[in-house]
Amino acid sequence: MDESSAPKPIRCRAAVCRAGGEPLQIEEVVVAPPKAYEVRIKIICTSLCHSDVTIWSIKDPAGFPKIFGHEAVGVVESVGEHVEEVSVGDMVLPFCLAHCGDCVDCRSVRSNVCTGVPLGLLDGVMPRDGTSRFTDASGAPVQHFLNVSSFSEYTVVDVTRVVKVAAAMPPEKACLLSCGVSTGVGAAWKAAAVEPKSTVAVFGLGSVGLAVAEGARLQGAGRIIGVDLNPDKFEIGKKFGITDFVNPKDIGERSVSEVIKEMTGGGADYCFECIGLASLMQDAFQSCRPGWGKTIILGLEMHLSPMSISTLEILQGKSIIGSLLGGIKPKTDIPILMNRYLNKELHLDEFITHEVGFHDINKAFELLMAGKSLRCIIWMDR
Amino acid sequence: MDESSAPKPIRCRAAVCRAGGEPLQIEEVVVAPPKAYEVRIKIICTSLCHSDVTIWSIKDPAGFPKIFGHEAVGVVESVGEHVEEVSVGDMVLPFCLAHCGDCVDCRSVRSNVCTGVPLGLLDGVMPRDGTSRFTDASGAPVQHFLNVSSFSEYTVVDVTRVVKVAAAMPPEKACLLSCGVSTGVGAAWKAAAVEPKSTVAVFGLGSVGLAVAEGARLQGAGRIIGVDLNPDKFEIGKKFGITDFVNPKDIGERSVSEVIKEMTGGGADYCFECIGLASLMQDAFQSCRPGWGKTIILGLEMHLSPMSISTLEILQGKSIIGSLLGGIKPKTDIPILMNRYLNKELHLDEFITHEVGFHDINKAFELLMAGKSLRCIIWMDR
Repeated sequence: MDESSAPKPIRCRAAVCRAGGEPLQIEEVVVAPPKAYEVRIKIICTSLCHSDVTIWSIKDPAGFPKIFGHEAVGVVESVGEHVEEVSVGDMVLPFCLAHCGDCVDCRSVRSNVCTGVPLGLLDGVMPRDGTSRFTDASGAPVQHFLNVSSFSEYTVVDVTRVVKVAAAMPPEKACLLSCGVSTGVGAAWKAAAVEPKSTVAVFGLGSVGLAVAEGARLQGAGRIIGVDLNPDKFEIGKKFGITDFVNPKDIGERSVSEVIKEMTGGGADYCFECIGLASLMQDAFQSCRPGWGKTIILGLEMHLSPMSISTLEILQGKSIIGSLLGGIKPKTDIPILMNRYLNKELHLDEFITHEVGFHDINKAFELLMAGKSLRCIIWMDR
Repeated sequence: MDESSAPKPIRCRAAVCRAGGEPLQIEEVVVAPPKAYEVRIKIICTSLCHSDVTIWSIKDPAGFPKIFGHEAVGVVESVGEHVEEVSVGDMVLPFCLAHCGDCVDCRSVRSNVCTGVPLGLLDGVMPRDGTSRFTDASGAPVQHFLNVSSFSEYTVVDVTRVVKVAAAMPPEKACLLSCGVSTGVGAAWKAAAVEPKSTVAVFGLGSVGLAVAEGARLQGAGRIIGVDLNPDKFEIGKKFGITDFVNPKDIGERSVSEVIKEMTGGGADYCFECIGLASLMQDAFQSCRPGWGKTIILGLEMHLSPMSISTLEILQGKSIIGSLLGGIKPKTDIPILMNRYLNKELHLDEFITHEVGFHDINKAFELLMAGKSLRCIIWMDR
């Protein structure tokens, strides 16, 4: 590559978060060229996930300034040395987890925790060299987020974290598969491998919980019980296969696990905790059937509290499964999900409840925090 | 069946425990005839398991008088109505868990927690009618233990808890399969389904832990790390496939999980907790490999404390599996283990470290509590 054709720094707009809990500011930033094994992407659209909001709300000055966003689709603008898998002009989806394809984890069907490249989810820098590709107008570095940072017109992502998107795939639908929806569908499909005709209970019906229901529906589950405090979620949930609904506010003195045990004759075969609350993890565990009941933990406990497990209960043949991103191996599993969408098997359209232009990105935060949106698509060119 | 051939009450000797923690007394008891679906067994030999000692040591007057013992082999002396599976004269092994063969759990390959007959492990009575078959010299009832009560020359057991023993099988070897050894071997074989060449860590090398090692050896594990405070356990453990040994006393400031992670390049594939201590369960969990590491909980926490799980750790693709009796389905799995013993694949002889006559039964307690024995066979006719 001669000097003239080498990628140059790009000046563009990014939504920068200057302090925890404060609105993002659209600023001009400089995005450095991709280094070896890196890809610079022009973002088409991005969406807001609860993980963005969780970390955004932590008022730790060491975490800022930062560019959030990790669900997105874009087009490869340039590539660094040794990048052969994608080329300039390819439509791609960035994914926070790596998939190098070579390490013992990538070579195993059992793991999606790639150990070939640092995990570095919350490090705020590129995984290989530990530096940022973003600088602000004053020349100061701006932190990355979850190895993606898609709230910027351009971003740089490690090649192990990029999945090609078929041209037939609408970008805003592919976008949904880059975190929350894949995590939920994956939890039912990969982490739990829900068996046909089985009984599933889903605790918390945000996008991830609804995606678990959708995954369980695709796996052929016989009954899918949704648990949520918001009664509107039952109607929404039906679109994703939810057959029964339990509102903890409407069951009087009884516990959710008592109600689920009664509904299912002893407990659900699979219970998914989709909120990240230790007390709800215990409810899920107690709602599982002795003999073979599995409890699947999908997200980080929001206060980082540990989960407390009765050994008397687990001894009855129960198990607890944890997974990152539902066990999804991005480069092999996301294309399968895109195909299932194109074949009209996987429901994705129903997750998109709102769409805004980039300048309105703070609206996406407001809608998600108010529980009004599932996914709000943020279009970079609007 | 006419009146004259109907089973009559039997007067015989039993080792009765009158109060928690006190030596057993050899007394004359009356063993009632078996009722419907029950089998009366003349015990040949029995052995002492830690569960006997755990419950024996609880000083709750409501739990006594009781006849302990749940690992045994005997001969069917008489049967109640509707018993067709075994006949008078058959050599059988009683098992504390039921296996009715008809319920949804028995029909599933995933569960060994039979729901066709009450579990009633600690109820002290027969599972179907909730009464005892034992009375003492004063005519007062004496409690059963774990549905077996083998510290008596005769006992009555539900037919769902009886496994036939092949004539070629030495009774004292079959006896070992009626609880502890089956639990350990089963945990590796059934509950965890240890994969060939995998790395296994066993926390606590009593009979159950050594049996886990033996089960892992039979499954083809590549490396079996034993963890115990007693350095003598390494030599014993080698007989059961243990390849490496960690003594928590010999690792200075480091934790057991740090040492195991270092030895295995990130953690063991399977970690088995074989003591029943919440802190050790956490060590086992932390010693497991991210991506696919499984922690298997085999026994009740000895103080009934819950286990505390870091959700940050479990999210890395770890899981926790609980099982009763290692997932063993007695009527189908115990015959397989007996065949593997007769085929010289499964090691059983090495578990028998002591043998005593029935009158010396308290010696078996002393040996086990002092950590001097693995299994002490108690012969009823010596």
